[in-house]
Order: sequence, then C-alpha cells, then structure tokens
Amino acid sequence: MSADRPDRKILLSESEMPTQWYNIVPDLPAPPPSALHPGTLEPAGPADFEPLFPMALIMQEVSMDRYIDIPDEVLDVYRMWRPSPMYRALGLERALDTPARIYYKYEGVSPAGSHKPNTAVAQAYYNKVEGVKKLTTETGAGQWGTALAFACALFDLECEVWQVRSSYDQKPYRRAMIETFGGVIHPSPSDLTEAGRAVLAANPGSPGSLGIAISEAVEMAAPNPEVKYALGSVLNHVLMHQTIIGEEALLQLAKVGETPDVLVGCTGGGSNFGGLAFPFMREKMAGNMNPRVLAVEPAACPSLTRGVYSYDFGDTAGTTPLMKMHTLGHQFVPDPIHAGGLRYHGMAPLISHIYELGMMDAIAINQNECFDSGVQFARTEGIVPAPEPTHALAGTVRQALEAKEAGEERVILTALCGHGHLDMAAYDCYFAGEMIDYEFPEEKVQDAMTRIPAV
Amino acid sequence: MSADRPDRKILLSESEMPTQWYNIVPDLPAPPPSALHPGTLEPAGPADFEPLFPMALIMQEVSMDRYIDIPDEVLDVYRMWRPSPMYRALGLERALDTPARIYYKYEGVSPAGSHKPNTAVAQAYYNKVEGVKKLTTETGAGQWGTALAFACALFDLECEVWQVRSSYDQKPYRRAMIETFGGVIHPSPSDLTEAGRAVLAANPGSPGSLGIAISEAVEMAAPNPEVKYALGSVLNHVLMHQTIIGEEALLQLAKVGETPDVLVGCTGGGSNFGGLAFPFMREKMAGNMNPRVLAVEPAACPSLTRGVYSYDFGDTAGTTPLMKMHTLGHQFVPDPIHAGGLRYHGMAPLISHIYELGMMDAIAINQNECFDSGVQFARTEGIVPAPEPTHALAGTVRQALEAKEAGEERVILTALCGHGHLDMAAYDCYFAGEMIDYEFPEEKVQDAMTRIPAV
Repeated sequence: MSADRPDRKILLSESEMPTQWYNIVPDLPAPPPSALHPGTLEPAGPADFEPLFPMALIMQEVSMDRYIDIPDEVLDVYRMWRPSPMYRALGLERALDTPARIYYKYEGVSPAGSHKPNTAVAQAYYNKVEGVKKLTTETGAGQWGTALAFACALFDLECEVWQVRSSYDQKPYRRAMIETFGGVIHPSPSDLTEAGRAVLAANPGSPGSLGIAISEAVEMAAPNPEVKYALGSVLNHVLMHQTIIGEEALLQLAKVGETPDVLVGCTGGGSNFGGLAFPFMREKMAGNMNPRVLAVEPAACPSLTRGVYSYDFGDTAGTTPLMKMHTLGHQFVPDPIHAGGLRYHGMAPLISHIYELGMMDAIAINQNECFDSGVQFARTEGIVPAPEPTHALAGTVRQALEAKEAGEERVILTALCGHGHLDMAAYDCYFAGEMIDYEFPEEKVQDAMTRIPAV
Repeated sequence: MSADRPDRKILLSESEMPTQWYNIVPDLPAPPPSALHPGTLEPAGPADFEPLFPMALIMQEVSMDRYIDIPDEVLDVYRMWRPSPMYRALGLERALDTPARIYYKYEGVSPAGSHKPNTAVAQAYYNKVEGVKKLTTETGAGQWGTALAFACALFDLECEVWQVRSSYDQKPYRRAMIETFGGVIHPSPSDLTEAGRAVLAANPGSPGSLGIAISEAVEMAAPNPEVKYALGSVLNHVLMHQTIIGEEALLQLAKVGETPDVLVGCTGGGSNFGGLAFPFMREKMAGNMNPRVLAVEPAACPSLTRGVYSYDFGDTAGTTPLMKMHTLGHQFVPDPIHAGGLRYHGMAPLISHIYELGMMDAIAINQNECFDSGVQFARTEGIVPAPEPTHALAGTVRQALEAKEAGEERVILTALCGHGHLDMAAYDCYFAGEMIDYEFPEEKVQDAMTRIPAV
C-alpha cells in the first residue's frame, strides 16, 4: 500500500459537526413565489399551516434568516450517526478508468438508512417542545415512516404511520422496522378515517396511494391540538434541515483540498438534493467555487425536465395550499418504478424556483441504466445503494466517462442518500431482466395537466 | 449540549488501523489439541487440507507466530469500511439508568453488514495469489455467502454459493444481495452434485441443511485445483482474521482512557467472539488489564454450557477431520431460532480449548429476552441489531443491571457484529408474540451424542 495513496474515507469528528442549518432563500437573486390558500388564492399565512405544524417549523418555513441554530437536543441525536462519512470512490474510478476523482457523501449510516432522519429528528423535537403528543404521517416505500418512528422514539412521542397498502403488503421488512422503532402502522386506505372509509366503500380492494395516505394522516392530526402532521420533503424547512449534509461535505472536501467541478444528486421531492447542493450554491454565489449542479430524475417521473412550472396542489386530492412548482399535474400517477421515493408528481417549490433561476441543470435517466450503475457501484465500493440514489450514480458514471473522453481531472461529488438493504426485490427484478424502462409519451400527463388550477 | 459530554463515536483514522492479525495460540498456557484424520485418527497434516484450502491459509491454521502481517491488498480493501466505529451507548445507559459505561464495537458497517468480510477478503486474497479461479461455499441465513461474494468481486474470482433451501426460499433479499455482488447461488440440495442428487432422490422436497450444503460446496471444490472451498468460522485462521476487531477496540478504548471490566460477545462458531476477545486476553495474560470475558450462546444451541468437550466432526455428514471441541453432537439439529448464525452444533476448537483453560465464562439466553434487549437497543441507539448480536446485547443489559444493583461504574464492551436489515422477519415474529423459547431437555442431544466418535 503506497504511503501517499489517498484515504478512502474522509471523516469529521463530532466536534467538527456544523451547528447551524443554512437557509438559501435570503441569498437568492429573487424571492420564491408564496404558497396560496386554495380557496382565496391569497398568500397562505402561518394560520393556514397551524393545524398541522408547530409554530417553530412554520416560522422556519418562511424565515429570511440565513442561518438557524440547530438545537442542542437535535445535535445530540445527530451525533448518533453524524457527521456522516464522505468516501473517495477509488474502486469505481478504477473500474471506469477515469481521470475524474469521485467523492460520495453517504447518508445510509443513519438509523433509518437514509437522509430522512436529518429532518425527522428536528421535526420531532420542535413538536415535543410545543407540547405535541403524537405525530402522524404517510409513507410509501417506508423510508420516511421509519425515520419519523425513530425520531419519535427518542423524544417520547407517539408515531402513527399510514403506509400505502401495496407497499405495506410488498415490503413487510419496512413495516417491521417501523414497529421496531415503536411506531404504529396502518395500511392505507384504512377504516380509521373518513377519507379511508370513503375509498374502501368505493373500492374495498384499493391498493392505496400516497395522496390517500396523506389525507388519512392529515385527517387524524388536524382537529387535535396535541396531534400534528409531519412531512418528509418538499417544504422549505425540510430542505433546510437537510443542509447539514452539504455543510459537512464542504468541510470534508476542504480537508482533502478539493473543490467540486460538478455536483450530482437524485431528485424526488428535492430534500436530499437541496440538502447537498444549497451550501455549495452559497459558495458559488459568493464566488468561492463554480461547480455545475446537476439533478437526476427518473425518466418515468420527470417533473423538472418535462413538467410545467405552475401553481398546483401538493397532494392528489387537492387539499393542500397551492405551491408554484414544476409539476406533472397533481393527479399524475407515475409508472411503478422501483425508486418509490422519486415517484412524486411535483418538485419542491424552492428547487423549482432555483431551477427557473438557471442555477442548476436536470436530466432524466431510465431505471435499467440506473441499476447498471448501482450494481457496478456495489461491486467496486461495497455498498448496495437504494434505488433512488442509483439515479445519482448513473449521472455520476456519465460525468466520469465524459471526463475520461475529455481527458480531464474532473472532481465529482455525489449524494448517496441511502442503502438498498430493504429494497433488494428491485435488484431481483433487475437480475431477472424484468425491469421495465417505461415510455413517457406526452399524452401521459395531458389529462392530469388539464386539472392544474388556473391561478 | 454540555462541552464535556463524551462523544458517542470513537473513530480511528485509516492510518491508525492495525496492520497485523494476532494469533493467540503461542501465548496460551497449553497448546490446543490437534485435529485428527477421521480414518487414521492420526493428527491431520497440511496435505489433508490441501484439496480445499490454499497453502497460505493452511500454514496460518497451524502457525505459531504471534503476529501475521495483513497483506497490503487486504488492508486496502479493509479501508472500505475499517477501522469500524466504536460507540458509547449513551442512550442505552440512560434507559437502563445504570452507572455502567457501555461501549459497543460495530461491524455492521461492512459491505455484507457483519464481521464476515474480515476473513472473506483475506481468504479471497490468498486464494487469488495461489492461482485459484473460483471459491465455493455454503451459507445458511446468507451472511457468509454475501461476504464471500463481495470479496470475490474485488479479487476477480468466481463465487458459487449453496444456500440451505429453506433459507433460500425464506430470505430472497439475501439471495439478491449475493447476486448483486456477482455471486452465483443455488438452493441446496441441488442437482449439481452427487451429494445433492442423493438427497433429492430420497426426498425431493428436502428443505436442506448446513451439513448438506457443505457437502455440495466441498464436492465441487475438492477435485479441481483451480477451485477451493472457504469456511466462515470455526477454524483457527478464520478466528485470527477477525482479531482486527479486538485490536482496533483496544486502540479505541485507549483513546477514551478506558479499560474494560467485562467483555460480552455472542458465540455461534466463535469467530466474532474470538475476534473481539483474543487481543484483550493477550493484554490480560500480560497483566495489563483484567476483564471478565463472557460468551452468550442461544439457549436452544448451548454448545459451551451444555455440550461435551470431545472429538467430533465439523459437519453433519461426518466427512471433516475430527476436531476437539464443545459439541452437542454433529447430528444435533437445533430448534429453528432466528439467530441462524448461532445454530451450529459445535464451538470453534480454539474457543473450546480456551474455555477449558478457564479463561472465559459462558451463559445461555432464550431468544425472547434477546429480542427484548435488541428492541430496547434499537429505540435508544438507533441501530437494529441482527438476531445473533441480540444475544450479546441481552448479556450486556444483564451486566449493566448488575452494575446498577451493585452501584458500580463497570465498563462493559460488547460486540455488535451486524445489523438486522435483512432479518426483519424475526422482529415481525417477536412483535406478533410468536417467538418461541424452546425447551432444552437433556434427551434432545442424547441420540446425537451417542454418535460422537470414540477417540
């Protein structure tokens, strides 16, 4: 082993962990459009959110402070797995024979196995402080439900999760993990809510949807001041909590004297991507570096590259405030790709706004190419990635091969937002040759698009 | 957060990683008994092992060197996840309200999610150096098969795994993970070997067993000099490769100025336990510390606490050299507890010998108590443990509560040898109240015991 071989891991001590979240909003050249009340079409105010969220989070949602101190109690929990490791992908570089230097920031070391606890812990904490006794939420594949159950266990809150029926049946391991962390979990639609009962009355065998599960979780939270609702992506405060990822990554790259030429992340709701990218965008706006910022979305749900930028609902049922975002229409149902966390009809309003400002690029990639890269990554780096970050890895491999073509020593930083230990059925499907690259004809979204509210 | 609060994680840099394995044999007050050839009952020599193992590993098996240099190529792979973290269990300590300080060494950060790659990588390397093209092995629950497939991917070896049929069908995620790392996997019994075909002819629906799977893997390796066989526990060289765990743990505890009062580990074949304990035993023999060393075995397979110390076969079919070990009889079939990795009829000869020398203690615990502790651990420390190390955790909790009772600041170090992400069905069973604590009447082993060879 050569003495000057670079370390594979770039670690920070707990005392080096950042103690503030970064709010990119005040640094942007133009403010993002307000959310609108769906009835009045007036800008939505704190009172509109109060039945669902604690005031501290509502204030963070609209804050113009550049930095917000992370509470000591949240820092103490973060220290269970943070600072998260950054890796130099020496094995993948060798396999690609690229002059690029590839770094990845790995969030799979968290209790839930993804970046989701970064915001779950913060949300549980602020709810606890304001006297809330229980949090409700929806979950699809189960990452978010797991993260919230874990966070609630630590702050002695009850946690009730409505999981989309089809996932509930297909992914019993996720359900068991939520229960292990002390969460109560129901398949959605359930007979516990009016929303659920209505769906079951019409269709007793309904496989459920994220939209229905949101309706159930919200219905159980809204009327009871001791019960609140928690959302795992999309909103400003959620993205802000994730900036701990990018702040750490800045410190880690500085330790090895690197500045990135390109940042690559996958986008679903946008929280993992924003969490990595926003601190680097700050440095770019300040003239300290000039990375290209590249979002990779699934070809089957391409909200940034194929959607429109318009006011739309956050949920399928059309009950949330209207948010200006890139959307495929709130009633668009994506094909069943394995990256369940990327199957969202819209993009975080803040990411959408930044995209419109020309501060980032986006591409869409089909899932077989993503799993090609995911398997190559597993065999060279030893970590089996979740289906979502295989999109970031496919984008990274493309960048590394471009660098090879150009003969350039490009520095690539990517976000490996979670492991795939509970998603191995997707790999089974891939190895069986049964993974489908769905077509995405324009007609697919037209019907849903016609129902985007005219504002 | 108080400035003098201890860190949750004790990390080593890659440059601090130990570069030698420790061989405890020459330091023992008496040498361990030799393995015997089953036909001649003469001590087994290198030639008896040559059809199955490369010469470098056979030499390690009988080595009297106290330290063996870890090859650079193995160190380079270890650096993908090593040094592994040690944690202070602050959350568990609070929950138990104990004056004990609890530390755990966590091997779940490895690619396979357990300690198994520590030896899989070494074995793959030495086989590669000696020109081997393919490794075969058996696997039960799948941890070992995953580790070997990963190691073979890195050294460009083929890997063929026979997995016990019942596990193959029940644990498709493990199978997918082995394939993701490039391994070829067959359910055992298979029609690819004479051993498998014979079993299938007698019982077409056979659920298989570890003994049958070993026979198949050995049959495919023995006649072909380019194909060797790899074993994941029990043998001296396997335990030695695992001492990297204990060597790191010594450095980590020294960093925080602690010496352990008690070491707690789970025992199946013994490699995880030996890996942690042997370096501490060296320090104890040298008079540098005086920890109690405690093995926890499952009440359903109590080879140390209920078995006899006798020469017996390593496999069910009775084809291996005879090894002197604590055994429940090579034809003993343990009840189907969820800790598949602890369902072995014998104990590593080296651990058995050390136990006879009075250098360690052993207790047996039922699986419901183990999962009680595992769930408490998950909810306070954020890591969902594999079923095997829940035994170590149950022993740790007992120790911590004893310290509380005695009002003593005991320092406990335990081995968390893997995560449970691919074992969540066991947690499902536990929460459903369907986990069985099996009785262990003496009659259970009598029949198997009568077939222990008289030597």
